[in-house]
Amino acid sequence: MDKANIDKRAAALIALFASAPIKATTGMELSYEDGRAIFEMPYNPGFDHAVGGIHGGAICTLLDNAGWFTAALQYDVWIATVDLNVKILEPASQEGLRAEGRLLRSGKRLAMAEMELRSASDGRLVATGSGTFAVTSISRQAKR
Amino acid sequence: MDKANIDKRAAALIALFASAPIKATTGMELSYEDGRAIFEMPYNPGFDHAVGGIHGGAICTLLDNAGWFTAALQYDVWIATVDLNVKILEPASQEGLRAEGRLLRSGKRLAMAEMELRSASDGRLVATGSGTFAVTSISRQAKR
Amino acid sequence: MDKANIDKRAAALIALFASAPIKATTGMELSYEDGRAIFEMPYNPGFDHAVGGIHGGAICTLLDNAGWFTAALQYDVWIATVDLNVKILEPASQEGLRAEGRLLRSGKRLAMAEMELRSASDGRLVATGSGTFAVTSISRQAKR
Amino acid sequence: MDKANIDKRAAALIALFASAPIKATTGMELSYEDGRAIFEMPYNPGFDHAVGGIHGGAICTLLDNAGWFTAALQYDVWIATVDLNVKILEPASQEGLRAEGRLLRSGKRLAMAEMELRSASDGRLVATGSGTFAVTSISRQAKR
Repeated sequence: MDKANIDKRAAALIALFASAPIKATTGMELSYEDGRAIFEMPYNPGFDHAVGGIHGGAICTLLDNAGWFTAALQYDVWIATVDLNVKILEPASQEGLRAEGRLLRSGKRLAMAEMELRSASDGRLVATGSGTFAVTSISRQAKR
Repeated sequence: MDKANIDKRAAALIALFASAPIKATTGMELSYEDGRAIFEMPYNPGFDHAVGGIHGGAICTLLDNAGWFTAALQYDVWIATVDLNVKILEPASQEGLRAEGRLLRSGKRLAMAEMELRSASDGRLVATGSGTFAVTSISRQAKR
Repeated sequence: MDKANIDKRAAALIALFASAPIKATTGMELSYEDGRAIFEMPYNPGFDHAVGGIHGGAICTLLDNAGWFTAALQYDVWIATVDLNVKILEPASQEGLRAEGRLLRSGKRLAMAEMELRSASDGRLVATGSGTFAVTSISRQAKR
Repeated sequence: MDKANIDKRAAALIALFASAPIKATTGMELSYEDGRAIFEMPYNPGFDHAVGGIHGGAICTLLDNAGWFTAALQYDVWIATVDLNVKILEPASQEGLRAEGRLLRSGKRLAMAEMELRSASDGRLVATGSGTFAVTSISRQAKR
């Protein structure tokens, strides 16, 4: 696909995410760099677990998003997360997080990506993951 | 461990989760049945993705919690999620969700659990998962 | 699907596996019980690792097979393993192993199964796993 | 650790694998490059499935080995595979395979690695994986 089309699709995906309720709830921001989706989440105390660290659920959400939006850039239709594997290497606490996707495969019916998540403050590797996404025939028009 | 101690630990874990910021943010409720942690999340539109379904991140958070609190019942110390594998079988939308854990192993250093997540309205299987948790030497006193 | 057809397909899959070179190499045996594929592998010292236990690769092969043949029973075409997650709970050594699959989902394009593997001698749980399989349009005629 | 010690440990691990029955059964070869374990397996028809491709079990064995021997280079003791996640991107058939590990983390109690597996003939990416390994207190002396 040519660059103009990729840029157009990236803009549409950024607009799609901007309309997602989970964006407002979490404060995550999406951008693209060379075909990779980048998700940044400034520290949001509402996603802490009881002992004061950032909950694994927030880490999974960032990794799922980074993989999904990296894979989605290859398609005009909705894709569905099928498998998500997450490894948490270190705890994170009171810090921004940044997840990035990398495309492994984009087939007619399945796409795969791998992802990593780092601390936005010191860059250390907090978690890695991989995802498998099914290509559907559903339009990805945002619900209004 | 005897039943009185397990009940005491379950009560402490329920109190721990009650103090977690993520509980207030998501609206999840924890209970225990025969040593299995049950997490229920009434439908919360703030966790929808852009196309109107429930975001995979909420599903992962419920599964992580169900596995973590099932495994944690075996220990007095903090455990850390190391690996989380999630399979999403079907989309979920505008419905409550209920995740349940089942202990696979509780060793001196590692615990493992498997989890399933169903629709609270029609009981259909939405997702399954498994988790590996490292047993730490850290107290699990809630942060105040 | 009616029982006669399932039995016919099970017989065809058992014949398919009987023709597989990996069957001769490993000594694995396939049977079906209530739609679940059962793989048994008598102790084969050729699959030991250097320290005298059974190599994780043999465990993965058994789990992959148990999931694949459980899912394949739902289809007339070839399916391809896409994702395989394995948890090894305990070492196994100098003992037969028995893996069993359980169908989680059989859709038009993707099937999912979960699997467990036990010692054939004492029944203890050695490993668990889950698999995602893509339904292809390729015939599963054995190669001659 | 200094380079002389790493080289000594790599030599010991290569000798360990040379004594493993599974090496003779599969024909896999281990080498190290910059701390990464490389496993090569010339095409071995005994690991074909019934339809003539290389069985997923051989792919898993190569990935498990590449991750395990990459992580083991950081330790003097036995490590145990706890979690292994494998994604198969493409079928492989009648070709040599080459798996390579990359260390993600080496802690006091847990190590993690990611792995990729390529065709030895055309270099295409066939599978990726990740592994979690528990550090034990057991010596890794080969069994005689």
